[in-house]
Amino acid sequence: MRAITLTEHGGPEVLTLAETPTPTARPGHVVVRVHTAGINRADVLQRQGNYTPPPGANTEVEIPGLEASGWIEEIGEGVTGWAAGDRVAALLTEGGYAEYVEVPAGQLLPVPQELSLEDAAALPEVLCTVHSNVFSAAGLRPGEWLLVHGGGSGIGTAAIQMARAQSAKVAVTVGSERKAEFCRALGADAVINYREEDFVERIREITGEDGAPGDGADVILDVIGAKYLDRNLRALAVDGRLSIIGLQGGTKAEANLGRMLPRRLSIIATTLRARPDDQKARIVSEVADTFWKQAVEGTIRATVDTVLPLAEAPAAHARMEAGENIGKILLRVAEA
Amino acid sequence: MRAITLTEHGGPEVLTLAETPTPTARPGHVVVRVHTAGINRADVLQRQGNYTPPPGANTEVEIPGLEASGWIEEIGEGVTGWAAGDRVAALLTEGGYAEYVEVPAGQLLPVPQELSLEDAAALPEVLCTVHSNVFSAAGLRPGEWLLVHGGGSGIGTAAIQMARAQSAKVAVTVGSERKAEFCRALGADAVINYREEDFVERIREITGEDGAPGDGADVILDVIGAKYLDRNLRALAVDGRLSIIGLQGGTKAEANLGRMLPRRLSIIATTLRARPDDQKARIVSEVADTFWKQAVEGTIRATVDTVLPLAEAPAAHARMEAGENIGKILLRVAEA
Repeated sequence: MRAITLTEHGGPEVLTLAETPTPTARPGHVVVRVHTAGINRADVLQRQGNYTPPPGANTEVEIPGLEASGWIEEIGEGVTGWAAGDRVAALLTEGGYAEYVEVPAGQLLPVPQELSLEDAAALPEVLCTVHSNVFSAAGLRPGEWLLVHGGGSGIGTAAIQMARAQSAKVAVTVGSERKAEFCRALGADAVINYREEDFVERIREITGEDGAPGDGADVILDVIGAKYLDRNLRALAVDGRLSIIGLQGGTKAEANLGRMLPRRLSIIATTLRARPDDQKARIVSEVADTFWKQAVEGTIRATVDTVLPLAEAPAAHARMEAGENIGKILLRVAEA
Repeated sequence: MRAITLTEHGGPEVLTLAETPTPTARPGHVVVRVHTAGINRADVLQRQGNYTPPPGANTEVEIPGLEASGWIEEIGEGVTGWAAGDRVAALLTEGGYAEYVEVPAGQLLPVPQELSLEDAAALPEVLCTVHSNVFSAAGLRPGEWLLVHGGGSGIGTAAIQMARAQSAKVAVTVGSERKAEFCRALGADAVINYREEDFVERIREITGEDGAPGDGADVILDVIGAKYLDRNLRALAVDGRLSIIGLQGGTKAEANLGRMLPRRLSIIATTLRARPDDQKARIVSEVADTFWKQAVEGTIRATVDTVLPLAEAPAAHARMEAGENIGKILLRVAEA
């Protein structure tokens, strides 16, 4: 089959289209013929050599790609509830940038006709990430304030809609007026341009009432890490939860526990990709029972920035690294 | 009434026995005639001037004391389910070092005849603290490893028994062989002398199997804070939770998010005393439904180090500061 392989680390140009062995389905797994694959920032880290895939992956060559949509091609031993030809979306361990990919059956989501396979490819990572972090781990409740850093990202555009669907209030940070407009149109209650404003001061104003400053965000979803740690802790309300899912701003920072204790703050650090299959299956199953229904109905919509052919994976990575995208960048693998 | 008052900050000698106004019961509150009051490290911080009581407290003079046992003396408007003369234990906002104390009715626990009022005074803070942090917030599950710093403290001696009662495994750190023996007798699966051993290395050995090192503790209950932050993060297993409830080792420390993210670690910082009344009432109610039954039956026992007369509060504080106690130090206020 054709696939984008990674034989060395470096810039986008190291992503190479090649002929590779087509995978077969181990017990408990299925093989999906890929229609569209989603690009994630974790793929960029992997390409740069800043991430090592877990041992035991079922590929001789390294193929990036953490989510895809398509049709079930082959069903492994012991898999029930799915049939060849079923339209599916999948949360992958790796291997999405390819014509075929093997995936544990627990990581599949059904794609009915109302949902296009293109949109379906843009949803697994963002829905599973926001669900597992903002709702499961950080427990965002109706009426609470969520602050999302990078409102224009795939995660950000999904988080805005998911928070609104759960009757929470949502503020986002963005780096441009174009992204600010887009986030407002998606339903963000407040937008902060981090190039022009101090988000700590602004979130207090935003969460305040009648001109008096408020206490800050109840939950923050952060991809920056060290560079924002102290400011994030200062931007949290009493009983606030900081969910860190990326380290674009470094890894080591001073934590002020003297601020955290009396205000009962918590820091929850995770990555979805490093979770073992059983945890991924549990998260996918929870998403299937909750936000997936809203995605199929169109209440929560995939925000698709660009769709490029598989061979143009390098251009797709370059666009993500430049921060130009609003929402997801996708790779089209098959037409039908 | 007689009470220990705090009119200036300083050493144990500033705790002064004085005649103060007897409190009356506001709506939703009761007044308890105190049999025994518990001493907590938070009282020492308050005495030293390192803690400011929340505004709105119903006392003109500052009276320390976060827990007590005794008999209901007066019942405020709207309080149901309690009668004058009932034997109770209470989680207090302040004021325990006195003949009478006012307390929100939601913070009372019933004391049947099987449980002595002396033991009952030693239980509210430790049961509520360990329940709310180790079980509710950090979600310790059966079969998981809990590491408790300060196994000989009131919190530590309770945490050992509570973890065992929930079929979890428990390791503790202690500073003396006398405390180590005591913790083993209480049921600790492993004891680490922090003066002689590196607890990070030891917890890996302890959680290992067949001579191979393990992954560390699933939950750590910590009162040290900054000084232990990095070591605590290194002592945690994948999906581990660090619950910080004290800052005896300082407030500011470097957090290595690059370690936390791939291992999905969380830091939860809280203090019980700063929680609003509704949260305290919820925690007391949960304890009443769970560990309180085991305390009444004697499955979980109060560890009482010393009982001193109310007037000897300075000696009680000095003993706690010297770290000599195993379990709780109490003040006897009334005999019957």
